[in-house]
Amino acid sequence: MKYKQKIAHGEFDFIDIIKNMFVDTNINNIIGIGDDCAIIPSDDEIIAISTDMLIEDVHFIREATSPYDLGAKSLLVNLSDVAAMGIKPYFSLLSISIPKECREIWMIEFMKGYHSVSKEFGVMLIGGDTTGSIDKIAINVVAIGKGDMKNVKKREDAKVNDRIFVSGVLGQSADGLKDILNKKYNTPNALIHKKPTIAVKEGVWLGKREEVHAMMDISDGIASDIKHILKSSNVSAKINIDKIPTETTIEDAVCGGEDYKLLFTIDHQHAQKIKSKFKEVFNCEIYEIGEIIESQNNNIIWLDNNVEINPKWSGFRHF
Amino acid sequence: MKYKQKIAHGEFDFIDIIKNMFVDTNINNIIGIGDDCAIIPSDDEIIAISTDMLIEDVHFIREATSPYDLGAKSLLVNLSDVAAMGIKPYFSLLSISIPKECREIWMIEFMKGYHSVSKEFGVMLIGGDTTGSIDKIAINVVAIGKGDMKNVKKREDAKVNDRIFVSGVLGQSADGLKDILNKKYNTPNALIHKKPTIAVKEGVWLGKREEVHAMMDISDGIASDIKHILKSSNVSAKINIDKIPTETTIEDAVCGGEDYKLLFTIDHQHAQKIKSKFKEVFNCEIYEIGEIIESQNNNIIWLDNNVEINPKWSGFRHF
Repeated sequence: MKYKQKIAHGEFDFIDIIKNMFVDTNINNIIGIGDDCAIIPSDDEIIAISTDMLIEDVHFIREATSPYDLGAKSLLVNLSDVAAMGIKPYFSLLSISIPKECREIWMIEFMKGYHSVSKEFGVMLIGGDTTGSIDKIAINVVAIGKGDMKNVKKREDAKVNDRIFVSGVLGQSADGLKDILNKKYNTPNALIHKKPTIAVKEGVWLGKREEVHAMMDISDGIASDIKHILKSSNVSAKINIDKIPTETTIEDAVCGGEDYKLLFTIDHQHAQKIKSKFKEVFNCEIYEIGEIIESQNNNIIWLDNNVEINPKWSGFRHF
Repeated sequence: MKYKQKIAHGEFDFIDIIKNMFVDTNINNIIGIGDDCAIIPSDDEIIAISTDMLIEDVHFIREATSPYDLGAKSLLVNLSDVAAMGIKPYFSLLSISIPKECREIWMIEFMKGYHSVSKEFGVMLIGGDTTGSIDKIAINVVAIGKGDMKNVKKREDAKVNDRIFVSGVLGQSADGLKDILNKKYNTPNALIHKKPTIAVKEGVWLGKREEVHAMMDISDGIASDIKHILKSSNVSAKINIDKIPTETTIEDAVCGGEDYKLLFTIDHQHAQKIKSKFKEVFNCEIYEIGEIIESQNNNIIWLDNNVEINPKWSGFRHF
């Protein structure tokens, strides 16, 4: 069983190759490969589009999850990408390839889970593709948002002195995955891994705050994810690991996959104001874990109670 | 080897179940599940979105196709869906799940094929997802077009007395598939099956003609595909099989999959004018194969040299 296999050439090396190959098809004003979503500009409202693929025995184990939860998660992880750009998702498309034994009850239960999330977040299923498969299930979801260009939060917009925040406790999903691999399918953390809570309203609210600069969702662990912000914004970061909200090991908290919490930076003069307002609106905390500093190395300085440490942390790789 | 397997519950039965389940998430003005594309309206230009999944050993055999041709075809079949709504495609997203042995040369060649089509049709790759797989390749492409709502050609717009047209010779792809299943991978028809010619410019041109009413692309054979037009428009059709352009058996021509020619109806008073203009512009023929008639049975009357026949033809089923 390979589950979320790690390989030498990660997704982001390959993305650079593609970016170079496709430079001659680029059109002005398009935010393309690299952010959580692609943004198609318009005179009216911009369109934000994200897509994610879930493959059996890579992203999920059939016997470990109910089809209902898998249907829900397939849409949730895509809504997370749109909300992490500060934009409200409105539509989705679902492609699914299923073997014979899943074509009746399994598929209806899957769709019920997908429907429950569609209804909860007001997201309309507008199309897709269904096809057979020989043995494994493959799922691809596209989530589409609409909104104002001025609310779009990109990875390239972090500024020196910004405070770095996360929107919730990290590492639960990584712990849940360990449980699942040990065939403990229904522990509290396994349930979180199988059906994560997604910060859609929170992302859209943060999108409307001009004091919030860069934003993304945490899918591969902050040790990996924040590097995209640092590289895109050409800055570095200090992270205080003692400030990271977690109930597990610090390694799982910074390197574990699929937390789907928001990672964002706020202008340092307004950070405490936004933190207070967020608590007022959502009755929960956002956590300040560090700050953006000037440097063209785009690296992370890890601090533990103000002492610099040099861990060999890297993110979770889906590919 | 199951290749394009047929099963009892086809895609369209399942689509009805989904349509009913998701009726409570529907929003006004959206053309959703059922057409070649979903249409998102806008004060400015509408957005047309289509998605198609290609699964190894269901839609293609790895040893029978070059990664270059497969990359090209993955995008082409999606561009066909957008053009078949009368809209020009501008953007695409690519998700691909690949086993270890395909992650270097195979993948670069695949992307070169995908890029060649992107460049030929001016379609920008704006995002996607890459992930590992245990053994089989799964591909999902999304194609996105922009254009005027008045140019959108839907399946529901066929009118009584409309003449029915196809944009090219039918059945070559079905013959090519037979060759491939007999391990003759490089016959002329096998090459057409592996890298079909797509009528993008033609679809966009027809989209601008108000005399053209309903339109779709032929992916499952006209015996199956035209039924979607008849059902959506609540009409029936007479089809003259002696008028169907083909170089193979009539059964392969009307039931074979993946022709990707356009199937459309034209106001009977303007059919010959459009046919002449099409030839002027594209230097090739469109073929009149029948007419729309009044009836609420939504069935096809097949005629062979004006004699009614009763064949047991049904379309090609992907699922």
